[in-house]
Amino acid sequence: MDLRVGLIGLKGHQSTILSGVQAMQDARLVAVSDDDESKLAGVPGWPSAGPHTQTFSDGLKLLDSMELDIVGVCGTDSERAPMILAAAERGIHVIAEKPLAMDLDELAQVREAVQTGGIHLSMLLTMRCDPPYITMRRLIADGAIGEVCQAVMQKSYRLGERPEWQRSRETFSGIIPFVGIHALDLIRWVTDRDFTQGAAWCSNVGHPAMRDLEDNACVALQLDNGASASARLDYCRPAKAPTHGDDRLRVAGSEGVIEWMYTADQLTLLTNSEDPRVVELDEPIDQFANFVASIYEDKPSWVPAEDCIRMTEICLRLRDAANTGTVAQLA
Amino acid sequence: MDLRVGLIGLKGHQSTILSGVQAMQDARLVAVSDDDESKLAGVPGWPSAGPHTQTFSDGLKLLDSMELDIVGVCGTDSERAPMILAAAERGIHVIAEKPLAMDLDELAQVREAVQTGGIHLSMLLTMRCDPPYITMRRLIADGAIGEVCQAVMQKSYRLGERPEWQRSRETFSGIIPFVGIHALDLIRWVTDRDFTQGAAWCSNVGHPAMRDLEDNACVALQLDNGASASARLDYCRPAKAPTHGDDRLRVAGSEGVIEWMYTADQLTLLTNSEDPRVVELDEPIDQFANFVASIYEDKPSWVPAEDCIRMTEICLRLRDAANTGTVAQLA
Repeated sequence: MDLRVGLIGLKGHQSTILSGVQAMQDARLVAVSDDDESKLAGVPGWPSAGPHTQTFSDGLKLLDSMELDIVGVCGTDSERAPMILAAAERGIHVIAEKPLAMDLDELAQVREAVQTGGIHLSMLLTMRCDPPYITMRRLIADGAIGEVCQAVMQKSYRLGERPEWQRSRETFSGIIPFVGIHALDLIRWVTDRDFTQGAAWCSNVGHPAMRDLEDNACVALQLDNGASASARLDYCRPAKAPTHGDDRLRVAGSEGVIEWMYTADQLTLLTNSEDPRVVELDEPIDQFANFVASIYEDKPSWVPAEDCIRMTEICLRLRDAANTGTVAQLA
Repeated sequence: MDLRVGLIGLKGHQSTILSGVQAMQDARLVAVSDDDESKLAGVPGWPSAGPHTQTFSDGLKLLDSMELDIVGVCGTDSERAPMILAAAERGIHVIAEKPLAMDLDELAQVREAVQTGGIHLSMLLTMRCDPPYITMRRLIADGAIGEVCQAVMQKSYRLGERPEWQRSRETFSGIIPFVGIHALDLIRWVTDRDFTQGAAWCSNVGHPAMRDLEDNACVALQLDNGASASARLDYCRPAKAPTHGDDRLRVAGSEGVIEWMYTADQLTLLTNSEDPRVVELDEPIDQFANFVASIYEDKPSWVPAEDCIRMTEICLRLRDAANTGTVAQLA
């Protein structure tokens, strides 16, 4: 197999794709595009690329010029859906940044195009591939905490310097679709429960230079067994904090509580029957390799298209609910 | 001064009142009522009571039989408003369990009766008197974290055995008014920000023997500066957990994050300018002594009547929003 991989945009988690290409003997990074020439200048030096890797300042030109099997779509939020549509038209499989679209109309177009184009689609819900969450999902499925009663996730990050495209609603989807999608996807995936209703509030209160980029959000939701969930997102992690991020996921059930704290680097399990313990973590997943295997070896996708579409829909509905002070119907 | 104190009901935080009476030279516990004779049998042995302390099986009989200055109202949720009304009619000051009422109609009657009776009213929002929260409020007011962007509280408890009255909507107000009121009051009090909107979900998923007693709730809210807040409540703390409770309060601002974790017994402050540090805690407050001083020495009340009424209103509106899947208007 000779797998020709392209990359449109260098504004996200493209490293997942690049390290995946590098790890696969049969994959080649044949083309990269971005509107920033200075970023493209570094491409020939990448371990996953080489002098043969062509560069483009425009994603559509890349698609029109190259024969590709898979394309990574990692530009701004507003470029995402148009590029997915263009790739689907050409029958190229897509692994995209999140969310898939800026609004529900665009999302409907993406859903339709993926179906019509018969392509495989995945999304860089990279946290699904991290050991703590894989382990939590397995333990919860095994009944370690009984019936899920509540799931709560925190994502807190340093703000640092944010690019211009994240400061405008025209090009940025918002903190809930951009950051919250990881938190809500993990709650849904780890508990194997879907959302039925939710409400959210978000704003930029403390960082006016970031304009439309919200620095905080809180979401409350109902799960399909009647349990509750919430997510809290912020860009308020101080400069002097010991780590860039402070992710936490806690699921409380009828028989126990399981909790991951990134800063403590510990997954802890408390139950009614056993003494509290720190859980050993499962192995990570290579998301790109899994995506390739899901296409060519008929293996199940770790991040299937229906989850990517569903999570984008959930986050866009919650963002719109936050903007209008209403309850989002998610069932 | 000879302060005659009565206590109606032994179903809540009455220990705050009892230890307060005990600590005050001039206060006497003159009467106690409860519908459980076995509980009353122990009264003469209490350090705050004695053989002179009269007991009643009925709160109204107590009020009709005794001359009182202050009464503690610590029975079931459904008895609370009627007893506050009866005390207010007789001009007796009230320190009550929370919430003040079972619904908004009852709450309006309480508000009216307190005004008409000209009595002082407070509520056992006991957590306001705990050092971590006093310290957080002081530091936030001093600008330690800049503009408040997000506040989040967890209250998690072991379920244990719950009395019959907490298992029925007829006598129990719900997990949000009963437990969540502490969390939401602390968010509001510590940040000095009021709530404008909120939504909530709660249910009993994992503990059917508890019937109407919800074992989980998640609330998301908007603060009056546009910031977001959330509270998560559960009765899922496992039997083998190292402590009965696991309270946490985290406030993120434009310049720092301050966080209390009960199980770690640490209040930590992270900021943009200083290395992370553990904060020394302020002294606790004696809520009962403060209530007495607010009545007879014109000192400011630590838990003033308007906050008790406001917090009851907020929690009842959020509970009703949870029951109907709507957004509660709180402004």
